[in-house]
Amino acid sequence: MTGGFTRDDLSEDEVARRAALYGPFTAAVRELVDVTIRTTVDDDEIRRAQAEIEAVTARLRARQLPGALGVSYGPDGRGRPWGNTVVGLRNPVAPPLVTEHHPSADGRVWCDFHLGAPYEGPPGLVHGGVSALVLDQMLGESAGAGGRPGMTGTLTLRYRQGTPLGDLRAEAWIDRVDGIKTWAKGHLIGPDGVTVEAEGVFILPRWARDRIAAGDGDTPRFFE
Amino acid sequence: MTGGFTRDDLSEDEVARRAALYGPFTAAVRELVDVTIRTTVDDDEIRRAQAEIEAVTARLRARQLPGALGVSYGPDGRGRPWGNTVVGLRNPVAPPLVTEHHPSADGRVWCDFHLGAPYEGPPGLVHGGVSALVLDQMLGESAGAGGRPGMTGTLTLRYRQGTPLGDLRAEAWIDRVDGIKTWAKGHLIGPDGVTVEAEGVFILPRWARDRIAAGDGDTPRFFE
Repeated sequence: MTGGFTRDDLSEDEVARRAALYGPFTAAVRELVDVTIRTTVDDDEIRRAQAEIEAVTARLRARQLPGALGVSYGPDGRGRPWGNTVVGLRNPVAPPLVTEHHPSADGRVWCDFHLGAPYEGPPGLVHGGVSALVLDQMLGESAGAGGRPGMTGTLTLRYRQGTPLGDLRAEAWIDRVDGIKTWAKGHLIGPDGVTVEAEGVFILPRWARDRIAAGDGDTPRFFE
Repeated sequence: MTGGFTRDDLSEDEVARRAALYGPFTAAVRELVDVTIRTTVDDDEIRRAQAEIEAVTARLRARQLPGALGVSYGPDGRGRPWGNTVVGLRNPVAPPLVTEHHPSADGRVWCDFHLGAPYEGPPGLVHGGVSALVLDQMLGESAGAGGRPGMTGTLTLRYRQGTPLGDLRAEAWIDRVDGIKTWAKGHLIGPDGVTVEAEGVFILPRWARDRIAAGDGDTPRFFE
């Protein structure tokens, strides 16, 4: 059994060492993902690349987790979602987004990022579902940044115009809170303004309710 | 300029030849993506793998498209969205979904697929945004299968329970049609039943309206 929230109490130095190892490695695989879609080399070169990739994969599989990565955390309660599809430092599928926020009750978070060939839906445009993926993560992070981490309850997207592949910005904030529910809003911004608007309800999970009720002073932060 | 809908009039044989070349190549990169997240080999092995991957990438970049892949099609009007984030045969980010449908007015489509480590959000669970990504594609394909291709206008997701990583099923169908708008519905099904429900509005693009108005007998199929 892997996955789950795992307290590993790694030192800051060890976290930094692992980030310095896995960050560039994962970035290299992201480059390979991009060129896999875009390359126009000869068939023989494709076959040769495939054989070499299969050999590398076999060596990496010699020792591996039995399942997905899960989320680890240390004594500060701050999660390391390194396998996450959107923000995961070790996930080549993640662009990855590196979100920014200042501590605030309205949980405002923002992020500048780039989406290339792997995120295409209609020709030249970001896949509508990728916009939803990014905004789900942003709204969830907003809830977490406001001290209200949660699982997505509902999510509504309004597509105002096509989102071109390229440099984009996402913003999210908490709109209101009621009991265990947090309403978050956000949008994507392209070169011609807002392209997609989102609103979501995030449900505070039981472990977070217990910690808040216990008043142990730790804001739950696993979803940041 | 790349991207766009490109009529290339490839023969069926040539399409099959390319699928046989790029399908296994892309599948090999998907395996690498998975193990990039899950491997626990030594640091030196990670660095060695990184160097080899960078060398393969450099060779593949020797000749490449200047941008994203876009969607090509032949004389039957059937699109080949090989770069698509969800269904793209050449996109390692795509699981990929291989959707099935019988020609029908209600546009019913379905798909059995597997989501592993790259699609994780909360530990052990599919990222809520990945469920949205998959369902956006499925609802869009449903509209297309019913002869009503479209760009996503709105999309609403209701999360009933966590979706565990593993074997899943997605289903979608057309709920109703009004002018240029098509309402599609769908859901994800996990081992314990429906996990996420979706409803979306898809807007018929101008080129499809023109073709339908001209009554040229070709159902627009680019979004299938």
